[in-house]
Amino acid sequence: MYPVKYLADFTRDVFIKMGCSEKDATIIADVFIAAELRGLPSHGMIRIKDYFQLWKANRITVKPNVRIVHESPSTAVVDGDGAVGMVAATWSMEIAIEKASRAGTGWVSTRNSNHYGIAGHYAMMALKHDMIGICMTNANPLVAPTFSVSPMLGTNPIAVAIPAGKQPPFVADFATTPIARGKLAVAEKKGEKVPLGFVQDKNGIPTDDPAILKSGGSMLTLGGDYEHGSHKGFCMSAVVDIFSAVFSGANFGPFVPPSVAYLPVLDTKVGEGTGHFFGAMRIDAFQEAEAFKSNMDKWIDTFRNAKPAAGRERVLIPGDPEREKEIKIRAEGVAVLPAIAKEMKEIADELGIGFEVKSEK
Amino acid sequence: MYPVKYLADFTRDVFIKMGCSEKDATIIADVFIAAELRGLPSHGMIRIKDYFQLWKANRITVKPNVRIVHESPSTAVVDGDGAVGMVAATWSMEIAIEKASRAGTGWVSTRNSNHYGIAGHYAMMALKHDMIGICMTNANPLVAPTFSVSPMLGTNPIAVAIPAGKQPPFVADFATTPIARGKLAVAEKKGEKVPLGFVQDKNGIPTDDPAILKSGGSMLTLGGDYEHGSHKGFCMSAVVDIFSAVFSGANFGPFVPPSVAYLPVLDTKVGEGTGHFFGAMRIDAFQEAEAFKSNMDKWIDTFRNAKPAAGRERVLIPGDPEREKEIKIRAEGVAVLPAIAKEMKEIADELGIGFEVKSEK
Repeated sequence: MYPVKYLADFTRDVFIKMGCSEKDATIIADVFIAAELRGLPSHGMIRIKDYFQLWKANRITVKPNVRIVHESPSTAVVDGDGAVGMVAATWSMEIAIEKASRAGTGWVSTRNSNHYGIAGHYAMMALKHDMIGICMTNANPLVAPTFSVSPMLGTNPIAVAIPAGKQPPFVADFATTPIARGKLAVAEKKGEKVPLGFVQDKNGIPTDDPAILKSGGSMLTLGGDYEHGSHKGFCMSAVVDIFSAVFSGANFGPFVPPSVAYLPVLDTKVGEGTGHFFGAMRIDAFQEAEAFKSNMDKWIDTFRNAKPAAGRERVLIPGDPEREKEIKIRAEGVAVLPAIAKEMKEIADELGIGFEVKSEK
Repeated sequence: MYPVKYLADFTRDVFIKMGCSEKDATIIADVFIAAELRGLPSHGMIRIKDYFQLWKANRITVKPNVRIVHESPSTAVVDGDGAVGMVAATWSMEIAIEKASRAGTGWVSTRNSNHYGIAGHYAMMALKHDMIGICMTNANPLVAPTFSVSPMLGTNPIAVAIPAGKQPPFVADFATTPIARGKLAVAEKKGEKVPLGFVQDKNGIPTDDPAILKSGGSMLTLGGDYEHGSHKGFCMSAVVDIFSAVFSGANFGPFVPPSVAYLPVLDTKVGEGTGHFFGAMRIDAFQEAEAFKSNMDKWIDTFRNAKPAAGRERVLIPGDPEREKEIKIRAEGVAVLPAIAKEMKEIADELGIGFEVKSEK
């Protein structure tokens, strides 16, 4: 197990060595660590190598000029200048919060960015300002729209963080697909099948083969098939793509650039880089803040006390599972898979910094 | 078949007879007709009787004082004063549009309202202003949160309308459940089973019985079961409920009052009436309007030209099916089921206005 601080310091040092400012490297490390703490290692240490290789391929701006290119009292479009996604995203969410403090709400669409880690992190930035935070992003195309076999959408997540009073905040952070892509890779490695409704083959026939993406298959939107409402998952995913990319002037749908260096930059582009969308709503732009929070406590209490289904212990409020994981991981440390630790050691050696490979049980 | 204008005039006359102003009655009729035109009769003529009975039970304010009770440059809370939902909703969406015209975006949460028909209608009001329109509402509790058997949420729809240039607009309008409640009633009447993933019994066991709600069963959120991401559908439905009711001070979750007079008013209330949420975003608060619209054309073209799955003709862009239905229904007239036409005749007789029951083939 690695202490949280050890991995945070290592991550910060990697990005400083790449040429990022200490401030930016600290922001980046915070988001990587947030993913590990919330039990989403698919967005944590495993991604350092992707960024390291993008940097070596000159596909990342380490000293970016992130800037507002268009604005109104409650909105802005931000150009991320090819920055590490966490840098462009944190800066953009801060603008949304600042706009909200004056106009009641703030909405920022960001272009020319890159993979930014977990969406929930940015939505949660609003909480300490007594604001609701919203965050969306488009991503590499792996997901087919309903009735199609063409992978044209990312897993396009939506995160919404809502402050409460005595209760912990409500934090929803979910892909607009039934599962995250990482779960397919895990099933494949274990030699397991996946339930129908996750993926289809190159002809659009449902399959339980988790490796199907390698032979022209695609992921399905939330709902799985038309009968079960996959067109509603498609609607959500499309809205995320349009708010993130058409609002900002980023690449949309199938044109989103790959977030890994081993896939080439696409020939066709319809905008700049990857797109994100951020929102902040001051709760006292609607209700006196204490009244709102006390009603959120009542909402959370009501749903937490719903009668459980047979064999289920209780209803989980969005954010509960991640918060429970965070308490455990802060106490016990972060488990890093041996293969990932090995990659981190190679990066450390190449950059001339230290990293200790621990032999995990 | 009934000409559209005949049903619009009839609906307007019914609400004028109930005591609504001519302006309000015209607004109400417009929304009823919009549902029929878009091929959603479950939100059309069939609902006139519900409103007629709510009116007779004194549960509707026909001369409401709909008003802003709190505001910021980009937000407002509206009290609907117990109005017919279409009146409170139209007024609220107009406020959102007005706020957006000055602040870039406008967001309105509305309490003390009633069932408002189809969400898409209000989202589409933004289109002619070159704005994106958003609309949500909570509704009578029929849907259980993931891991629970307690019906605590409505089918809580989300509508998003986005202007395009040469292409028709993108109009998503979907419940956060796999199906609308009406489909269960249809299957039950036909003596058919429904696919697993729509409903569960009183113990939380999946069932194909469309009548299960009558014996303690509940509907499931989009995703169907936890394995297929029903917790993501729960997140969305919860966000709709919180934005519509906790922001506005309406009843949330299980406390939403019934939209039919044959169900009693609940003993417990946590706010006033039903809640809605409206948003308007000026597209030129992000991108020059013509550039945005031309990029939306490109987005729509790209997705419309996705390769169809085996046995499927083409990808449908959100809004396509409803627009095709509207063209057909405008030309051919509206089919009203004999049982509904009979109810309309009874209402007409009671109010002393005319209605002709046509014998449909």
